[in-house]
Amino acid sequence: MPTPPVAFHPRRSVEEVEEGCILAPKFGPDGLMPCVTTDAATGEVLMLGWMNPEALRLTRETGEAHYFSRSRQALWRKGATSGLVQRVTEARIDDDQDALWLRVAVAGSGASCHVGYRSCFYRAVPVGAEAGGPLRFAETARTFDPVAVYGDAPNPTQL
Amino acid sequence: MPTPPVAFHPRRSVEEVEEGCILAPKFGPDGLMPCVTTDAATGEVLMLGWMNPEALRLTRETGEAHYFSRSRQALWRKGATSGLVQRVTEARIDDDQDALWLRVAVAGSGASCHVGYRSCFYRAVPVGAEAGGPLRFAETARTFDPVAVYGDAPNPTQL
Repeated sequence: MPTPPVAFHPRRSVEEVEEGCILAPKFGPDGLMPCVTTDAATGEVLMLGWMNPEALRLTRETGEAHYFSRSRQALWRKGATSGLVQRVTEARIDDDQDALWLRVAVAGSGASCHVGYRSCFYRAVPVGAEAGGPLRFAETARTFDPVAVYGDAPNPTQL
Repeated sequence: MPTPPVAFHPRRSVEEVEEGCILAPKFGPDGLMPCVTTDAATGEVLMLGWMNPEALRLTRETGEAHYFSRSRQALWRKGATSGLVQRVTEARIDDDQDALWLRVAVAGSGASCHVGYRSCFYRAVPVGAEAGGPLRFAETARTFDPVAVYGDAPNPTQL
């Protein structure tokens, strides 16, 4: 018999959700939960993804990051196309259990951004005295050529 | 005359949004954008907050993190009650400009979680062979007493 899937628990009290050891996640009105993914070696934030219950279940059970693609409206095993699989070294959940943090080791070039950069957060926004100035590229070179990796697959960025 | 507020730009093309130097953020159907906040010194993820356009504007202009509290449905200058103000050392935006990453230096005890821990992500979720096991506390002690700091203000965690 196959192993039964790992279950989530009901949210019974604020105390249990915040201070307990029971996983009782809360997904948003769209059925999704935000997930921050950082590079286990450098601490850099690589991406902000989204998970539905199935993506969270698969991430826990396989130890590889799975997300839900909002643009494709489909479950997404990160790296299925690019090979840039994310192996989870640690998963954390926040106080009210409606957000996740994954620390991952990325296969291949180590990149996680479909545009070709290591991190999706490759541009800095000026703040304080510099506010209003142009975005500044914090990464200056792509790690891969998106056309070579993704071919003519649709760009997930939507206006 | 007061300084005019820093403006956002329209989203004119995928190329400009992904590869340009113009800030053209995209807020969700609820008017909010997720924001990952990390400790500038340790790289630790402190919290996953939300911003409306006003919170993003104030964060840019003041250099202090502002969020939109979903539980209180109000603009929220982080640290206004607790004194745990977050000074932004760097702000980043992601490829499709619908998520933010702030690196911050936190005032006072350095904590960012209303439960009293440094990080909101104080519990680890077992993955892989350990999946299904209980959550494990990655922080074992609170840095402050929430009752002493917040008094009888309502707990923002909602079931």
